[in-house]
Amino acid sequence: MNLYVGNKCELSWSTRAAVEAEAVASLTCSGHGRAFLDGLVVEGKPVCECNTCFGGPDCSQFSPGCAADADDGDPIFLEPFWVRHAASSAILVTGWHRMSYVFDDQSYISQELKRHICKVHAIAGNAVTAARFIVFGTGSTQLLNAAVHALSPDNSSTPARVVASIPFYPVYKTQTDFFQSTEFKFQGDTSMWNDTSNTSMNFIEFVTSPNNPDGQLKKAILEGPSVKTIYDHAYYWPHFTAIPAPADEDVMIFTISKLTGHAGTRFGWAVIKDEAVYQRMLTYMDLNTIGSSRDSQLRALKLFKVVLEGGGREIFEFGYKTMRNRWEKLSNALLVSQHFSIQEIAYQYCTFFQKVRGPSPAYAWFKCEKEEDKDCYAVLKAANIIGRNGSMFSAENRYVRLSLIRSQDDFDLLLHRINILVSEENGARTM
Amino acid sequence: MNLYVGNKCELSWSTRAAVEAEAVASLTCSGHGRAFLDGLVVEGKPVCECNTCFGGPDCSQFSPGCAADADDGDPIFLEPFWVRHAASSAILVTGWHRMSYVFDDQSYISQELKRHICKVHAIAGNAVTAARFIVFGTGSTQLLNAAVHALSPDNSSTPARVVASIPFYPVYKTQTDFFQSTEFKFQGDTSMWNDTSNTSMNFIEFVTSPNNPDGQLKKAILEGPSVKTIYDHAYYWPHFTAIPAPADEDVMIFTISKLTGHAGTRFGWAVIKDEAVYQRMLTYMDLNTIGSSRDSQLRALKLFKVVLEGGGREIFEFGYKTMRNRWEKLSNALLVSQHFSIQEIAYQYCTFFQKVRGPSPAYAWFKCEKEEDKDCYAVLKAANIIGRNGSMFSAENRYVRLSLIRSQDDFDLLLHRINILVSEENGARTM
Repeated sequence: MNLYVGNKCELSWSTRAAVEAEAVASLTCSGHGRAFLDGLVVEGKPVCECNTCFGGPDCSQFSPGCAADADDGDPIFLEPFWVRHAASSAILVTGWHRMSYVFDDQSYISQELKRHICKVHAIAGNAVTAARFIVFGTGSTQLLNAAVHALSPDNSSTPARVVASIPFYPVYKTQTDFFQSTEFKFQGDTSMWNDTSNTSMNFIEFVTSPNNPDGQLKKAILEGPSVKTIYDHAYYWPHFTAIPAPADEDVMIFTISKLTGHAGTRFGWAVIKDEAVYQRMLTYMDLNTIGSSRDSQLRALKLFKVVLEGGGREIFEFGYKTMRNRWEKLSNALLVSQHFSIQEIAYQYCTFFQKVRGPSPAYAWFKCEKEEDKDCYAVLKAANIIGRNGSMFSAENRYVRLSLIRSQDDFDLLLHRINILVSEENGARTM
Repeated sequence: MNLYVGNKCELSWSTRAAVEAEAVASLTCSGHGRAFLDGLVVEGKPVCECNTCFGGPDCSQFSPGCAADADDGDPIFLEPFWVRHAASSAILVTGWHRMSYVFDDQSYISQELKRHICKVHAIAGNAVTAARFIVFGTGSTQLLNAAVHALSPDNSSTPARVVASIPFYPVYKTQTDFFQSTEFKFQGDTSMWNDTSNTSMNFIEFVTSPNNPDGQLKKAILEGPSVKTIYDHAYYWPHFTAIPAPADEDVMIFTISKLTGHAGTRFGWAVIKDEAVYQRMLTYMDLNTIGSSRDSQLRALKLFKVVLEGGGREIFEFGYKTMRNRWEKLSNALLVSQHFSIQEIAYQYCTFFQKVRGPSPAYAWFKCEKEEDKDCYAVLKAANIIGRNGSMFSAENRYVRLSLIRSQDDFDLLLHRINILVSEENGARTM
């Protein structure tokens, strides 16, 4: 190959890919959508994929009657950060990049990436990684079940009881039920098992901190020699919560989705104290997917490099500022409401920002306060807002989870509709 | 963003990534290794990762006593194809590429990629895809267990019996055992169950065609209303076998690993007739990993575009030529041996090449013929060759699988050592 590195006018084989990517990126889609390299191509041109409620070839047409989407946890609020860092976050992947099953050390795990993950934790101050084992997964989703497998006792006559505290992230139940095994079984709410007579039973407790859906920092409830705990720390980043201290639990799970916003990359990692648990999780990854995609690992490495640039504060400041701003706007909109409320989250000292900081959770845990509004999802639906039903989180349907981490378009429309809902409530009261 | 597309001297934000990639690629590592974008960086420079038995900063130092590695199925034989297609196979991934969980149609599956997969099958003539459902997986490994799950009967009092014909790919057993479920259980060799009294039992039969390890085209053995079959067609490409006709089975599994050589990308797909089975496999993918990495899907799409260039014959011609050449060399080396043999594969008409063609399997199923050579792995080990023990494939240890799809360096050393082994045998006989 001819290579003339150092002068951008003398690029060789890489030019075609670079030109292709810039052509796709040049479609701005009116700021309400984007075009992708792997999107539909019509008449030789890439096509805009519009945000919810926008349409037309350039996404400029707003559909006024369209429902505000506050349903899933698509972390698109971080997209502007990456557009701002276009040059440093781009990667050019060659056709022959990492074709092998293994890295140079015969593992499925990039040591460079592992090193960068530890650095990011050190800067955020959210987890102890020194002298810990790290396993990669195809998103944290895969690691959740891998951890359940790894922590289940071998050859026990009764399967380990898997529990979580209501309200909890529904995947703990659906996943554990789906991969029903002779080794473990989902057994519902932790509080049902919180008495001393259960000390000899094997338990695996999921602890989500901060919690999905309600954003509260949580600790394990069950204790004892036969209790294992999986800390899902997906949201334990300065974007979403104060960081009181570095987490130092036996099994902690993180995901790139809620750190950099790359949900589609399907990359997560677990930080583990015990070598035997680590080895069992590695075996799970091996037999399930032969590790996580090397393309995802390459992408994650580049993203972490950008996160670490200039001392590594920028993404957390951007994340916190965006989420804090959204939370304040939503809180203000609901201040005057008697019918609707959102959770309270305490102001708390954050070691990352070195100050007491206000709440900036990923989700609002929205409550319909009126006695007759038992189906809060329906109340919001009537106001043209799509949330996620409280029963999905094993809670009352008086609650709905509203996602605040989606695109600015989605949040703006949600806020607009909430304002209308509250003003109608007050209008009605005045009448 | 400023974009000046059309003239390579006027690239904007993409230049940095392009320059970075060309700098890494410019390290040629003496043709016995390569440098990667995510490899170790020492003093600001990427480092060569050398092929087995080569070392030194530029991989120029051969270690004469080093063992020939014919162990795993790393499909590096296709690497030169991708180096040759450097310009068309490169992709430039932006920092904001596909951050969302979902594609524009709310699925986890790129429709563009699906379309390209169907085109590749049409050209190879190896599978019927019209009016079929397609599921993506994190490698075919994930799809194997997803298919077992999907084909297991719900709420049956006895778990489905999962079987395969000896010699078989070890993952069928290890994976099924590891993910032990109330729904399925591995039950060994298919032939143990091949009598009519078993017709009411639920069976799931793995059929690998061509077979790993022995390269033979295979058909299901079990028949009946309660028998389900999973066809693992990883190697059903013109590289490795004659294609007598397009496969048209209920559940067929393919992987990019053995088509383009990108084992590290962890991307596979299943072609499915029945919608209910398809839906169950989708649920598995959802709860296991929320689909396969969008970065892998982007990469796969680009690779398929290159495969399809110019009528789509080149990669199959390259693959066949390379594998046929290796097989002929190995066969010739063993022609005069009385102690060692490899499997016979019939010449067969191939619809892709439109002629009768000779064997070009991915693996040699190597046999130690001497009565006392019951441990063939040890015999080869003594000759400084690392294969994979017959017992791994539930066969006799008189057999060893030798991988022929690794790098040219690995194959050359293997052939060299086989030649020495055979010449020593003949030397001994002459004495």
